[in-house]
Amino acid sequence: MKNFRLSGTYRCFWLLTLIVFFTHPVENAAQTAAQDPDALFLDKIYDQALTDGRCYKWLEHLSLKIGHRISGSPAAEKAVNWTRSVLDTMGFDSVWLQPCMVPHWVRGQAEQVRVLGSRRYGTFPLAALALGGSVGGNVKAEVVEVTGIEQLEALGTKGLRGKIVFFNRPMDPTQIRTFDAYRLAVDQRVAGAAQAAKYGAVAVLVRSMSLRLDNFPHTGSLHYDTAYAKIPAAAISTMAAEKLSEVLKTDGRATVSLRMNCRTLPDVLSYNVIGEIRGSERPQELILVGGHLDSWDVGHGAHDDGAGTMQSMEVLRLLRKCGYQPRRTIRCVLFMNEENGLRGGKKYAEEAARKGEFHLAAIESDAGGFTPRGFSFEGDSSVFAAFFEKVQALETFFKPYGLQFVKGGSGADIGPLRDLKGLLSGYMPDSQRYFDYHHTADDTFDKVNKRELELGAASMTALVYLLDKYGL
Amino acid sequence: MKNFRLSGTYRCFWLLTLIVFFTHPVENAAQTAAQDPDALFLDKIYDQALTDGRCYKWLEHLSLKIGHRISGSPAAEKAVNWTRSVLDTMGFDSVWLQPCMVPHWVRGQAEQVRVLGSRRYGTFPLAALALGGSVGGNVKAEVVEVTGIEQLEALGTKGLRGKIVFFNRPMDPTQIRTFDAYRLAVDQRVAGAAQAAKYGAVAVLVRSMSLRLDNFPHTGSLHYDTAYAKIPAAAISTMAAEKLSEVLKTDGRATVSLRMNCRTLPDVLSYNVIGEIRGSERPQELILVGGHLDSWDVGHGAHDDGAGTMQSMEVLRLLRKCGYQPRRTIRCVLFMNEENGLRGGKKYAEEAARKGEFHLAAIESDAGGFTPRGFSFEGDSSVFAAFFEKVQALETFFKPYGLQFVKGGSGADIGPLRDLKGLLSGYMPDSQRYFDYHHTADDTFDKVNKRELELGAASMTALVYLLDKYGL
Repeated sequence: MKNFRLSGTYRCFWLLTLIVFFTHPVENAAQTAAQDPDALFLDKIYDQALTDGRCYKWLEHLSLKIGHRISGSPAAEKAVNWTRSVLDTMGFDSVWLQPCMVPHWVRGQAEQVRVLGSRRYGTFPLAALALGGSVGGNVKAEVVEVTGIEQLEALGTKGLRGKIVFFNRPMDPTQIRTFDAYRLAVDQRVAGAAQAAKYGAVAVLVRSMSLRLDNFPHTGSLHYDTAYAKIPAAAISTMAAEKLSEVLKTDGRATVSLRMNCRTLPDVLSYNVIGEIRGSERPQELILVGGHLDSWDVGHGAHDDGAGTMQSMEVLRLLRKCGYQPRRTIRCVLFMNEENGLRGGKKYAEEAARKGEFHLAAIESDAGGFTPRGFSFEGDSSVFAAFFEKVQALETFFKPYGLQFVKGGSGADIGPLRDLKGLLSGYMPDSQRYFDYHHTADDTFDKVNKRELELGAASMTALVYLLDKYGL
Repeated sequence: MKNFRLSGTYRCFWLLTLIVFFTHPVENAAQTAAQDPDALFLDKIYDQALTDGRCYKWLEHLSLKIGHRISGSPAAEKAVNWTRSVLDTMGFDSVWLQPCMVPHWVRGQAEQVRVLGSRRYGTFPLAALALGGSVGGNVKAEVVEVTGIEQLEALGTKGLRGKIVFFNRPMDPTQIRTFDAYRLAVDQRVAGAAQAAKYGAVAVLVRSMSLRLDNFPHTGSLHYDTAYAKIPAAAISTMAAEKLSEVLKTDGRATVSLRMNCRTLPDVLSYNVIGEIRGSERPQELILVGGHLDSWDVGHGAHDDGAGTMQSMEVLRLLRKCGYQPRRTIRCVLFMNEENGLRGGKKYAEEAARKGEFHLAAIESDAGGFTPRGFSFEGDSSVFAAFFEKVQALETFFKPYGLQFVKGGSGADIGPLRDLKGLLSGYMPDSQRYFDYHHTADDTFDKVNKRELELGAASMTALVYLLDKYGL
């Protein structure tokens, strides 16, 4: 890193100007990390990522040239072929496609959801997106508002038959980590339709999973229950939810018409995209970095999960660029179909089990391309305690970069690897803005900051390097 | 914080959905903080800030209704009166204005900076902003590019007389904390003009202090040397800097014409805005929170430093709202003229010294309204070691919120309080995006995230509460 010297001639001005910079901490990463060879190598990784990184350019291509890419879509196929071609140019030991069948759900024409004849607002539209996997339909019915699935039983068939159930429990803003707020609210989106159908409801509207009050509906997956009817389900924006709730309060009732053309077509052949650098000493031991290549069918899927996939490709490139020959096999996996089926993640784990591959560690980046805060770790209870103790010894290397290690969930795609008894890790960027964009038309390339994305890729590369060098 | 229960009826779906949430850490702030009464009170502060906060609404008013507010401007006066009126409504023990004379620099008509007759691009404009305090002028001359002040001596009068010096050393992207990169580059902006004038240069262009390649010029202060001529100085955008440098390389020369109408008018009477809650046990011991109310004369001054001033007002409101009666006097100070003179900060320290006030601690927020990362601490060497040891014992309370304590600079406005031998602290939000907006037309309200701003206000309130309760 550059060093700056004062020439005596203008030290006087310099002193004056110093007051401007009080807000920067005195010690900086370069200095703290000066001696230790591993610390120096981490510096090299971060310097490379920040001065000659590729992931931001790649994300620009994925976002603007390919765009959103739901499983089974032509765009998803383009994304598979393009990422494979990028990996092919980088001189890794092998690059291949791993076939898997994926669901093929299509939205069809834009949803039409309208409140009919309210006293104050008359008839007006609600910003809505069908939930992924929802059946289509043409429904007109009275709305019943609830704040949780547990209220359905009390209302029963008497209160719900023929009605549209409106789930309107907001995400809890007091949760510091927004993923906790999401976890505490998303049951309405995932299980709401099945549970409402159980009592004869004809459709479901769900308040969008967001802490922000805006007009972007947030789609996402739902699960029907084979025991009950499949009814149409849509997310409405938080502002639409507030307005619908207001109509229910002021008018005492609300009628909504809903028209959705979405439907599920036969499964389609798709692929996980894989590239690897073979290990020089323990090629049979694998360290995986990955994210998911598919996205929802709106926006660019820039944070979810274009960021994680481009960072994962960057990890292998950075190791090479920094002249590192790994002892273990380092594999980058771009999983298909995380959003609505997890077929790619399941297929990858099946194949790994079949081949008896040992994944010493798997790291997923699927929480956005924001500024790095740390890594979370989990694993099978038979091995986790010992692994976590060892990995904690590496946390100190990340202090200059402001990252911390915690116990916690890793990633959906690598979840199925848990049975193979390796260490599972989730890259943790700052979570505050993630649910502003998650699953919306607003998850676009311009919402990703270049340095934040690059710092994440460097952090993942640093962890892979340390795990490869020191094992577990 | 809300608690979420699974009703058995749909646990099956829930299990399916769990895989979606692997990326959230298992333990969350609420749980870790559960027992200890101080931890519970911190939870109360954060909950209040995140559910019923005011600082974001206040920042919206300051940004959109008042806008940028350079010292001596009518907008600065509006900002003084409006913030005073807001503080007046909150029932604090006293609210007052502290007079101070401030510089009155005006930009005048928009700058015109053009490259004349380049081979490839012909004559074209460079996106430019006069540096604050610069003299105006109408100059046309050849450009000499340098990457540092230390190069001027070698070029000497022979190489620089009658020339426009172009300082083009970029901020160092390998610095992890962007304030370090700023500190290592900003001498060009602050001292460049004075040093170039020493060798007979007629004007100065400075590459904007930004890590981003875009077309926003970043203004900022400069210091002339009374020993040499005052020459016009302007910042040009990083893209303009790249283009001008390219012209110099391809043509071997470049001529630039520069027209600036800026000038300095007589000093104007202005004010620091102050509100306080008197201490119940040790009223003579002060804890200060503050930021600066003035901004540069472009954009909204939303991050710099609308965010810090609104957070500082919020600290007092949150303490009241949470029913806390401080033992010491808690004072919120909105300083005037940090950007181009620091008159408010100096005046405040003078008055404090004159009255013999003891500031146990002063905390400044002037690094943007981004997600909280920690606090930095400094102070007079005669007292700092002991203070820092004591304050470090409080760091553990911030673990659930992800904040860390470091030794380092605090804030420009509170710098003059150093001689009064209290603890000085700087609130440290994440720094990655700060210099994307700093001192530009792009530092607008929409760049501030509501939760990030609120979490900062809550963190400052928490530190004030702990310092007040436990002292140093």
